Amino acid sequence: MNKSPKFAVIGGGSWATAIAKMLCVNLDEIAWYMRNESAIDHIKTQRHNPNYLSSVEFDIKKLRLTSDINEAVAYADYIIFAIPSAFLNAELEKLTVSLKDKVIFSAIKGIVPETFLIVGEHFNKKYDIPFDNIGVITGPCHAEEVALERLSYLTIACGDSDKAKVVADILSGNYIKTKISDDIIGTEYAAMLKNIYAIAAGIAHGLGYGDNFQSVIMSNSIREMKKFIKKVHKMKRNINDSAYLGDLLVTGYSVFSRNRMFGNMIGKGYTVKSAMMEMSMVAEGYYAVKSAYKLNQEYKAKTPIIDAVYEILYEGKEAKKVFKKLTEKLD
Amino acid sequence: MNKSPKFAVIGGGSWATAIAKMLCVNLDEIAWYMRNESAIDHIKTQRHNPNYLSSVEFDIKKLRLTSDINEAVAYADYIIFAIPSAFLNAELEKLTVSLKDKVIFSAIKGIVPETFLIVGEHFNKKYDIPFDNIGVITGPCHAEEVALERLSYLTIACGDSDKAKVVADILSGNYIKTKISDDIIGTEYAAMLKNIYAIAAGIAHGLGYGDNFQSVIMSNSIREMKKFIKKVHKMKRNINDSAYLGDLLVTGYSVFSRNRMFGNMIGKGYTVKSAMMEMSMVAEGYYAVKSAYKLNQEYKAKTPIIDAVYEILYEGKEAKKVFKKLTEKLD
Repeated sequence: MNKSPKFAVIGGGSWATAIAKMLCVNLDEIAWYMRNESAIDHIKTQRHNPNYLSSVEFDIKKLRLTSDINEAVAYADYIIFAIPSAFLNAELEKLTVSLKDKVIFSAIKGIVPETFLIVGEHFNKKYDIPFDNIGVITGPCHAEEVALERLSYLTIACGDSDKAKVVADILSGNYIKTKISDDIIGTEYAAMLKNIYAIAAGIAHGLGYGDNFQSVIMSNSIREMKKFIKKVHKMKRNINDSAYLGDLLVTGYSVFSRNRMFGNMIGKGYTVKSAMMEMSMVAEGYYAVKSAYKLNQEYKAKTPIIDAVYEILYEGKEAKKVFKKLTEKLD
Repeated sequence: MNKSPKFAVIGGGSWATAIAKMLCVNLDEIAWYMRNESAIDHIKTQRHNPNYLSSVEFDIKKLRLTSDINEAVAYADYIIFAIPSAFLNAELEKLTVSLKDKVIFSAIKGIVPETFLIVGEHFNKKYDIPFDNIGVITGPCHAEEVALERLSYLTIACGDSDKAKVVADILSGNYIKTKISDDIIGTEYAAMLKNIYAIAAGIAHGLGYGDNFQSVIMSNSIREMKKFIKKVHKMKRNINDSAYLGDLLVTGYSVFSRNRMFGNMIGKGYTVKSAMMEMSMVAEGYYAVKSAYKLNQEYKAKTPIIDAVYEILYEGKEAKKVFKKLTEKLD
């Protein structure tokens, strides 16, 4: 690894756009891959992503924009994936360039639907990337607030702390503070599980439960998350750190969270299918809960909230009844 | 103590009104003291408290309303105090009836300004009430949602678990779930400290910080609260239980919280005096922060958030500058 590693961002959505913006503060050049060629043309001529965070202005001299993922991967030493987990596998199948010796950072908060693995595990198991070359970039961080340059804190986790530090330093800036962590499994599971709890919070809201209950759901969620992650990967961590509790809160309390919105529609009586059609995209938590539920058949952590969301989304049980039972298990 | 203890509620505000409503579900009669005689007359004739939670209808046959605190205290075995902490001392000075053999429950979330003690300690030190006869009723619970009969969870703490259970059982109902705790000091400190953190959240909002930072403030607040309470009274507790984290969240995320509103005005540039005048009442956290700050001179817990709020409210430091420094200490 040379002294100024090269970075590529994979993805054209809001989080990818926010990460590209952050990287451009401290780097002279980045590669940026997105599928949408007309968006690339728009950025090249108008300096703004037309579809996401369109207020952000880019210095296009810094951007090597490409609709060829292989070009971006070939260019970079560090590759930051920021696409919905549902599309990851399809993108990776396009690769002809090797990922060997690349450092992969995931900014994806979810489960790869084809393998039911978190992204880090997917790269490790399917692409033989060693965990020392895999990292996670996690919030609490709405991309929209990065666009507004509102102060945000990121946690950069990697098995190799030097690599975490490289990414942390490059992302840091006036409105971004970073810390590093060695809990790559825990932070990624937290980022995935929080979407399930955001769905639960949304369902509760849709059913007419109020703010008092919302805080009880969050209090129970963080305790449940702690138990679950401990079963998956036992190590010393403070579950109340920003990467775990903070990330849960920014999602669970946000009316803009897709997962919370999805849950809200379910609580109001939409079917899963109609809620998805209405939103025209899939909430990450929808896949996450299936995976978490199945994993937990093995781990056997007490996870009444995950169980409730699973029963509603996958077993067609009535949200109202399931939550009535759930309220008896919370405290 | 006989088998059906008698209850009195002290206070005429929204939380007192909510508690009176909850008690009336399972009791045939309660005493209810409030200073305001015209409010008493209104309740007697119109069945509603004219000033707080005015949608709640009372079965007035159940209410022994009185503007004489001694009458209420003389009547009851269990006395629930639900008045602003700033008025507690003045009310207690009216007492001619002894508190000996009474069980005192505090539903006050604050510090007694004259003694800088939490309410339980005040009763213990100033009135010689043993801790086995002192309890705490704590949320997360907005009174307004009790009025709407939205599901809420209360924690009832007392040194004597039998007494906690008596109160928990009587408050429980269709929309109220209760649990008991023996952490009377910790729950009361949490209820007091959360108001300081709600002021901090409000200041941040007033200064223009966003949701990402709000979640970081909350994540840091609960860690700070844990450290502080551990210094005050070390025992095994899960700081993520509803009585601690839940109560923090329901206050910190509520736009209706007086403490958050007060902080918001400070963040927007009001002076302490003008913010108080504008609100026409004092936020509990204003007293709490002075007490917590002074206590911590002895305990020496790391409390950057409490320190920041103290410096702004009591040392006249500029909120913007203090928070700029604070952001360096959070993670």
